[in-house]
Amino acid sequence: MKKSKKVKTTKTKTPSRVEQKKSVVLSALRSLGEQLYSQLSKKQWPSVRMPSRSITNIHYDQHTRQYILGERFVRRSARNIRHIRPLTQLVWTGSFVDELAREGKTSTLRDVFYSAQAYEMSFTDQAESDDIITDLETVLEHPREDFNVFPEERSAIFGDLTIQYTVRGYEGRKLNLASHPDGMMIGPALTNAEFAECKADKIIAIEKGGLFTRFIEERVHDKYKALLIHTAGQAPRATRALIRRMSQELGLPVYIFCDADPWGMHIANVIIAGSANAAHLRELNTPDAKWAGVYASDIVDYKLPSDPLTDLDIKRLYELQKDPRYDTKLWKREIEAFLRLKRKSEQEAFSRYGLAFIVDKYLPARLKELG
Amino acid sequence: MKKSKKVKTTKTKTPSRVEQKKSVVLSALRSLGEQLYSQLSKKQWPSVRMPSRSITNIHYDQHTRQYILGERFVRRSARNIRHIRPLTQLVWTGSFVDELAREGKTSTLRDVFYSAQAYEMSFTDQAESDDIITDLETVLEHPREDFNVFPEERSAIFGDLTIQYTVRGYEGRKLNLASHPDGMMIGPALTNAEFAECKADKIIAIEKGGLFTRFIEERVHDKYKALLIHTAGQAPRATRALIRRMSQELGLPVYIFCDADPWGMHIANVIIAGSANAAHLRELNTPDAKWAGVYASDIVDYKLPSDPLTDLDIKRLYELQKDPRYDTKLWKREIEAFLRLKRKSEQEAFSRYGLAFIVDKYLPARLKELG
Repeated sequence: MKKSKKVKTTKTKTPSRVEQKKSVVLSALRSLGEQLYSQLSKKQWPSVRMPSRSITNIHYDQHTRQYILGERFVRRSARNIRHIRPLTQLVWTGSFVDELAREGKTSTLRDVFYSAQAYEMSFTDQAESDDIITDLETVLEHPREDFNVFPEERSAIFGDLTIQYTVRGYEGRKLNLASHPDGMMIGPALTNAEFAECKADKIIAIEKGGLFTRFIEERVHDKYKALLIHTAGQAPRATRALIRRMSQELGLPVYIFCDADPWGMHIANVIIAGSANAAHLRELNTPDAKWAGVYASDIVDYKLPSDPLTDLDIKRLYELQKDPRYDTKLWKREIEAFLRLKRKSEQEAFSRYGLAFIVDKYLPARLKELG
Repeated sequence: MKKSKKVKTTKTKTPSRVEQKKSVVLSALRSLGEQLYSQLSKKQWPSVRMPSRSITNIHYDQHTRQYILGERFVRRSARNIRHIRPLTQLVWTGSFVDELAREGKTSTLRDVFYSAQAYEMSFTDQAESDDIITDLETVLEHPREDFNVFPEERSAIFGDLTIQYTVRGYEGRKLNLASHPDGMMIGPALTNAEFAECKADKIIAIEKGGLFTRFIEERVHDKYKALLIHTAGQAPRATRALIRRMSQELGLPVYIFCDADPWGMHIANVIIAGSANAAHLRELNTPDAKWAGVYASDIVDYKLPSDPLTDLDIKRLYELQKDPRYDTKLWKREIEAFLRLKRKSEQEAFSRYGLAFIVDKYLPARLKELG
């Protein structure tokens, strides 16, 4: 019989991690409201204090290995006429997402922008409402996905993990994520699911959809006991948060496969080290995840079909060289290799050795190398 | 007890539609090979004849209500030195996809390009290999998805349809497509699945992911007994073929919801009338599918938040006016309304009346109107 890990039984009475998180977010929203009421009842001008997200207050933190906000704070106060508008917008947005959370509904950034009109809240454009949602993330210290505002784009997952839903209408229902071999979409339902049972012992994130399908067809989930994630290019934040959760709650190592070019590298790097845009948030990155290729040196070692780097590619490589998130031996070595080689390759380039080569030869060699 | 339609029992001995299609494609490939062998054994120059795809041979057909190829044919012959290269490429591609089909594997356009190198077949670039695959589609009269070459992009589905897989490793396994409320990816496994049982009585295709999720949360699948499809912008061909199959095999009407702009209209139109690029293929479009909005007139009637049309939008509307696929009363009326109004709206714009409005008010009104 296969070894499997029971992550959580359904009989436990302690609230699940998802329930805990939901109640933390709701109480953060309640605190925000109480703070404003209390200020008003003391005849103070209502105001909200939050860390500054200005570029000079974003620092790379060696300890957590990601960008974080520094010591500077800003205060939005109704006393200041220029603050009245963003403060009101922030408070409305808080009440809107509180309603979403209570009703178990989700929304998108676009929906929030339009919904505001139902309340006669005025946002000049979506950029303004997006910015206010980022403010709310900063105040609540939770990503917007935790208060039910999801991005439009979504990626997919496949593998031997049984989840248990918490979303309305599906409470307690279980599904094994290997049930559908085209992959399951990663959306609000999956993001809010509990992990019930997992037979995989690693996570492999893949940039390209074609390779994701190839990995399923070649039974990578089985041969290498892997959960497969299709990032669909730059991984959406909900997917990055899911990778982190799976890595931590299930104790699984994470490997990331992307194209061999600066853009592919950055897809891997953002999963590992996070983005500067999300410096106000924790729990979106997976510092121990490993970039597993395709490396510049693989282009040479495997004699892969390749294309010349464009000027834009080269400019991007010089930027990455100065980026603190790339300050490790492997990244530095490969950036230099790209600049020397002046060529790039795609994941599919391994098909020159037959469709199964990447799974039968390249993957095991790389997994062994990374330990 | 709910009424449900048993589409096919698993006990029947007659080959399923999917098996039938697979065997038709394989025998078309075999015929192609036999034809070449027979020519060679008669000491004739090997050659392949196919309908011309040149723009002057593409006609709009009122009967099938889509673009089709006319009477002109081209012949690729080894006798002509300029034909040797594309003929050889065509024959190699045929043998490659024959291998794919026999092994039950799938591939992408990108993979085919790289795989050629394993066989020392030379393609200058992917455009050249893509073009040869279109030749093969024309010769075989089947879309590339039927011979296992899939696009990278994929959309998603959700609703009360139980499918039965035919792909390797999943043969005979069943899954209800309402099992995962974020949606199931539409890829090779779903495309090749049989429809086992369906409780829905209509299909609703939706352009935007946010609205797809909204429809699931608001239980459109339940309230309106609908299968929901997220086209993710322009619907991939595999998704268009799936919509047609579901419409025909399950006898369900199809409604398409997109943004109120010329690009949204065209997403709907291509599902209904097909694209000129696919004039060499049948069975990708659903002539009886209905464009269900968002109409230009809805912008006025529902007082939707809107943006001005850009010059590009207006240019596009004039193009659509001349397009034979838009030669019906509804399309003409709405193109004129757009040009008069000079404004566009998004599906999410209905959120100004609350998140549930589009489902509780707009959708039933439109479905009633379309009958």
